[in-house]
Amino acid sequence: MRQQHLLNPTLRDVPADAEAASHRLMLRAGLIRQLSSGIYSYLPLGLKALRHIQRIVQEEMNAAGAQEMLMPALHPSELWKESGRWDIYGPELMRLEDRHGREFALGATHEEVITTLIRDEIQSYKKLPVRLYQIQTKFRDERRPRFGLLRGREFLMKDAYSFDRSAIGMDESYMRMYDAYHRIFTRAGLQFRAVEADSGAIGGTDTHEFMALAEVGEDTIVHCPACGYAANLEKAVGAIPANSEIAAGATHDQTPEKVHTPQTTSIKQLSQLLRIQPKRIIKSIALKAGSAPLVVLLRGDYELNEIKLKQAIGIDRIDMMTEEEIESELQSAAGFIGPVGLHKVRVIADHSVQCMSNAVTGANERDYHLLHVDVNRDLPELTYSDLRNVAEGDLCIHCGNKLAFAKGIEIGHVFKLGTKYSAKLGATFNDDKGTAEPMLMGCYGIGISRMLAAIIEQNYDDRGIIWPHAIAPYAIHLLTVQVLDEVQMKLSLDIYTALTQSGYDVLWDDREERAGVKFNDADLLGFPIRLTVGKKAAEQVIECKERRSGEQYELTVPDLLAHCQAFFNSNMRRP
Amino acid sequence: MRQQHLLNPTLRDVPADAEAASHRLMLRAGLIRQLSSGIYSYLPLGLKALRHIQRIVQEEMNAAGAQEMLMPALHPSELWKESGRWDIYGPELMRLEDRHGREFALGATHEEVITTLIRDEIQSYKKLPVRLYQIQTKFRDERRPRFGLLRGREFLMKDAYSFDRSAIGMDESYMRMYDAYHRIFTRAGLQFRAVEADSGAIGGTDTHEFMALAEVGEDTIVHCPACGYAANLEKAVGAIPANSEIAAGATHDQTPEKVHTPQTTSIKQLSQLLRIQPKRIIKSIALKAGSAPLVVLLRGDYELNEIKLKQAIGIDRIDMMTEEEIESELQSAAGFIGPVGLHKVRVIADHSVQCMSNAVTGANERDYHLLHVDVNRDLPELTYSDLRNVAEGDLCIHCGNKLAFAKGIEIGHVFKLGTKYSAKLGATFNDDKGTAEPMLMGCYGIGISRMLAAIIEQNYDDRGIIWPHAIAPYAIHLLTVQVLDEVQMKLSLDIYTALTQSGYDVLWDDREERAGVKFNDADLLGFPIRLTVGKKAAEQVIECKERRSGEQYELTVPDLLAHCQAFFNSNMRRP
Repeated sequence: MRQQHLLNPTLRDVPADAEAASHRLMLRAGLIRQLSSGIYSYLPLGLKALRHIQRIVQEEMNAAGAQEMLMPALHPSELWKESGRWDIYGPELMRLEDRHGREFALGATHEEVITTLIRDEIQSYKKLPVRLYQIQTKFRDERRPRFGLLRGREFLMKDAYSFDRSAIGMDESYMRMYDAYHRIFTRAGLQFRAVEADSGAIGGTDTHEFMALAEVGEDTIVHCPACGYAANLEKAVGAIPANSEIAAGATHDQTPEKVHTPQTTSIKQLSQLLRIQPKRIIKSIALKAGSAPLVVLLRGDYELNEIKLKQAIGIDRIDMMTEEEIESELQSAAGFIGPVGLHKVRVIADHSVQCMSNAVTGANERDYHLLHVDVNRDLPELTYSDLRNVAEGDLCIHCGNKLAFAKGIEIGHVFKLGTKYSAKLGATFNDDKGTAEPMLMGCYGIGISRMLAAIIEQNYDDRGIIWPHAIAPYAIHLLTVQVLDEVQMKLSLDIYTALTQSGYDVLWDDREERAGVKFNDADLLGFPIRLTVGKKAAEQVIECKERRSGEQYELTVPDLLAHCQAFFNSNMRRP
Repeated sequence: MRQQHLLNPTLRDVPADAEAASHRLMLRAGLIRQLSSGIYSYLPLGLKALRHIQRIVQEEMNAAGAQEMLMPALHPSELWKESGRWDIYGPELMRLEDRHGREFALGATHEEVITTLIRDEIQSYKKLPVRLYQIQTKFRDERRPRFGLLRGREFLMKDAYSFDRSAIGMDESYMRMYDAYHRIFTRAGLQFRAVEADSGAIGGTDTHEFMALAEVGEDTIVHCPACGYAANLEKAVGAIPANSEIAAGATHDQTPEKVHTPQTTSIKQLSQLLRIQPKRIIKSIALKAGSAPLVVLLRGDYELNEIKLKQAIGIDRIDMMTEEEIESELQSAAGFIGPVGLHKVRVIADHSVQCMSNAVTGANERDYHLLHVDVNRDLPELTYSDLRNVAEGDLCIHCGNKLAFAKGIEIGHVFKLGTKYSAKLGATFNDDKGTAEPMLMGCYGIGISRMLAAIIEQNYDDRGIIWPHAIAPYAIHLLTVQVLDEVQMKLSLDIYTALTQSGYDVLWDDREERAGVKFNDADLLGFPIRLTVGKKAAEQVIECKERRSGEQYELTVPDLLAHCQAFFNSNMRRP
């Protein structure tokens, strides 16, 4: 491609609202343009990179035994009502009416469509398993679209679905996808981790998220550098803190003692007033679980994990109690709640509370707390569960080493759905005895356009993008310094022809621009190597610059093809 | 691909509502499934054929100097309001609101998006011309979706746009696309004609439609077998009928004479009552052009072409007059209107009326007509224009030979837009003197999914589809008669491996089904050749059947590869 014809509007200035590096660079390098909040056009270079990702995904999906198909974006509302998600999904699901007043959703995901399709087309166990995927535009009306392609409202996704006749089959489909995802993200040059995730509202059992490691990531990953355990923050479990760690200064003889703590309603205020560490305080959180009151206990330095709580109590709707409710239903006072002496209320405690002695907690009376609480002695009938977010310093449940934290961008998700959709939508098969059984499903997503942004988040410097070879829009950037110089143009054309005939994708900067502009654009666009045809053209000498290493050296034209071959081979992948 | 794993639900029965052959066959062969009226899922084989079309389109677009990009489906309403189409487009444009109540359209076409993008990114004449295309899902809420993929509400389209600095440049862009379209449809194996079309409501100047010839087509094509002239019915022009043809029996002396024709209000009734041919009657049609009355005259055997009329009078809104309006505004009577004696009303006549003498027309009095009307004598001040649809028997304006009629499916459309959008949306460039000028645009569409249906409309028999090689989902259908026979399976696997390694796309029917079922499915799926491994497997002999010719013969395995190569070469295109 000759660059003078390319629609590639590069920008010198960074748009003010672009917070993420990938967002800034994709705008500056002319890969994308915003049409509306969270909605982007892909310009030629951006689309080319996207197509490279797409091809890798297709190859690995096909190799994993998945068949490509294509489903519509317009979904009749009846399908979503049948699955129960029309009401649950909320405002993220974009909805519209056709000219006859029939309701449709814009597909945010395709479980309903694929499950009813398979329900109608497959009856016998002989036709199972079947694994299908599509690469298709999805619509989700995010409340706060941000970070360019990282959180958009219209985006490109690969979604795959598996249908099996047994749990063993489902596990096999899941593992195939899990492995394929590893290959895909590795080929795309990403640093990533597969982390255990919560199956939460989607239902189902096992689930892993694939996280590209990046500071801009909105997800927190907890991982153990020693044994490799990794989970997202919602799911991660830390070891139960040992008794000894917090019992310092405890004397078992002291009974609870009321202390005056006027207007001291937060953990922070209390720890300052009493000069104790937050981890010696029992935090009591008053909630409504459905319509019933519920008090949750945590060690003062931990945060409640709502997802874990919902799973522990089996109730999906949780709200904070109001001050009035705390007074009327708990006979307590906001900011001074404590488990000792609380009656007729369900109380559930995180494991971290189990070993606390000589602890401080609310006295259920305005402006008073209790000292010297010993959980085992004073609260012998407490129920315990894992209800907290893992925090800095927590230890791995598998190996006891210290857990580490990282930020990640969710680029993929594999999920065992079980019979959640097949049961609701009636996707059954006849087993070998002729009995109808619901199919066992899995669903598997990759954010194709988000992957593009994640790749850039991991591959740039202050001059621009540094593409991994497999994704680079072009492998080679050929640059002619003086396009009015006949010798330079002739040599450039020869090189361009030779390289493209050898199968390399070459962008030839043949624009009438100053050399400085061209060099800056080349660094910004960031293709793996730049070949510059300049003053030494008459001597058949050109300059080669490797974008990632920054290495710069001269080459003679006869050596060029061999050099390119060696460069791309040594970097694992041909362009 | 091994067929036992393929999601390919073939049907024996034809769905009752599928009228078009392509619709029936795509359902029966398991290529598509309907999700909702005019909305389809592509199953693996259907998608594979679609991808082959897509690849041809991409190759030819790239070769024509167009760059691929990708624009969103969600368009902010502001853009469509700026171009004025938010109100004009009507209920075909699907609309929705996001969670903040902002209005969006689902892209039915992308002139607004691309024009504003180019407006923002290109300022200088040096960056022009630029030609861009995308292959993307479009949404149009058709009132009557029908014929499967031929008239859908969600469909795949290639749309391209060119931006030039001069009319000459625009013509050049147009011709490049025109030529690329010829190559695309030829490579896809289609029989088609490029016909002159009306630029009508979109505005602009030149326009051609590419029509795939097919009986099911909803468009009528007029063409001259002698000189190659072709146009769609809205646009086609026939030669002015010669005087001699209709003047038979005319005597110039006879003056108009009233005749009693009770309740004879139609051309047909009148011609029966008076025993004259319809072409001797002057048909008078009373209309409202905007708010003004207008009477249009046509020879009795011709039909009015509303598009031509609108262009001739420069008014876009035309309605029939009511009986009351005919009485009050024309002082005439419905069914008995005639041009003689009509006062204070604009009258416009089709060229076919110009030479009529001894003609019959309404007398502007209930139950009376006039005989012996001579147009030149009695209506000397008439205005003439081309207002009629070409009819059977009309002659070519270019060569005088008889025009022929055919039915067509519109698969492509090229269009010179001129400055229609660039002027409205402010897409200007600075010319070499620094003066801002609106860009000259063209737009160019191909219905990718409709092409798939059109290809099938032209390529089937009573047993199923007969794919053109370039589009066939698989080149070769390998069929094992007895999958429990080890010799047959071993030979099949060897052949499958050898063919796929040679680059052929092979579907291997390894299902445990009766041979009859497999043969029927193979004919229905219609790949170019079927190779059957059966009883003679031990002798290394297989059967080859060519789907299109129906020829069937034995082959020895060592000859197979050479045979396949010769077959696909002689049929113009490798698989």
